[in-house]
Amino acid sequence: MKFSPLVDELIHALKMLPGVGPKSAQRMAFQLLERERKGGLQLAEALQRAMSDVGHCSSCRTFTEEDQCSICTSAKRGMSGQICVVETPADVLAIETGGHFTGRYFVLHGHLSPLDGIGPDELGLSLLEQQLASEDVSELILATNPTVEGDATANFIADIARKHEVKVSRIAHGVPVGGELEYVDSTTLALSFNGRLPL
Amino acid sequence: MKFSPLVDELIHALKMLPGVGPKSAQRMAFQLLERERKGGLQLAEALQRAMSDVGHCSSCRTFTEEDQCSICTSAKRGMSGQICVVETPADVLAIETGGHFTGRYFVLHGHLSPLDGIGPDELGLSLLEQQLASEDVSELILATNPTVEGDATANFIADIARKHEVKVSRIAHGVPVGGELEYVDSTTLALSFNGRLPL
Ligand SMILES: [Zn+2]
Ligand SMILES: [Zn+2]
Repeated sequence: MKFSPLVDELIHALKMLPGVGPKSAQRMAFQLLERERKGGLQLAEALQRAMSDVGHCSSCRTFTEEDQCSICTSAKRGMSGQICVVETPADVLAIETGGHFTGRYFVLHGHLSPLDGIGPDELGLSLLEQQLASEDVSELILATNPTVEGDATANFIADIARKHEVKVSRIAHGVPVGGELEYVDSTTLALSFNGRLPL
Repeated sequence: MKFSPLVDELIHALKMLPGVGPKSAQRMAFQLLERERKGGLQLAEALQRAMSDVGHCSSCRTFTEEDQCSICTSAKRGMSGQICVVETPADVLAIETGGHFTGRYFVLHGHLSPLDGIGPDELGLSLLEQQLASEDVSELILATNPTVEGDATANFIADIARKHEVKVSRIAHGVPVGGELEYVDSTTLALSFNGRLPL
């Protein structure tokens, strides 16, 4: 015996969320049924609309329900001619929260991973190449993650940029500001030494 | 800046789930948009149907979309005349998994908690009293949690049962089988001593 069919279906569907196991799916279902029916219906509607209507920005590939996202439609953001390449929309948010970057983005939605069938096509690199070839791009800033895959992806894109004679750079990796040297991992420390600047 | 309106709404709605903070809501939304659109739509439908159609069994108050749940409609389960009172539908599942109890249940959906406005009415105790008065109940087994509130609720219900001259019992609390004495908390240990049986 489990619960009634509709309750079982709800628990089963909740388990599909990342980080949600059988126990927490059950807890979620009961809490919703017990005292969050309105919230549950709101979530149903938000899911329905987002899954059906959210696509990718035709310029930068971030998630949006419009043809272009709010950053790409802002004339101001195009003026610097800088494009920052990131792996995910969450990276865009992190950089925007900093508020220092005034250019546009290009969102890969992942990194090169041949074993998982993720190649240049899946990352939209032909769209990026089009922009490098035809638009007034002053600099391509590669902000993929400092991982083996992120580095390989950055190198691959750097080659494309060089082919189109666009200036290309990689964001610096090193000891975080406010971080304590002794707690930083050795790879970060090595990057930090390699990227040292003269004083 | 956050994300596009539909993405923001989805993240906001996901945060309403128990145990889901802003960061995991964002991670869930992105994973659904990135590669689980079908699962997301299934979840939307499961939520929609469960929130709208799941009610309470008219006999035992557990969650069901029917008038009565599958246990209450089973003639076999009524034969013993035993009714086990529990706080949540999850408790029913736990006891059913054990497979030893063959009677019916009564689900309180909580415990007495005057400060939160949860009294006898909210726990459906008049429905339980009706059953004690009119049906052939041989024993009422109180399986509320061994907490201050669970004990108070059990005592309150025990008084109702006595009024109707129905035999009433409380499940035993003590050291779990396979548990090590030294790791058991002192309250459990005290209950275990009080409930000791002659050998
Ligand atoms: Zn865009
Ligand atoms: Zn029932």
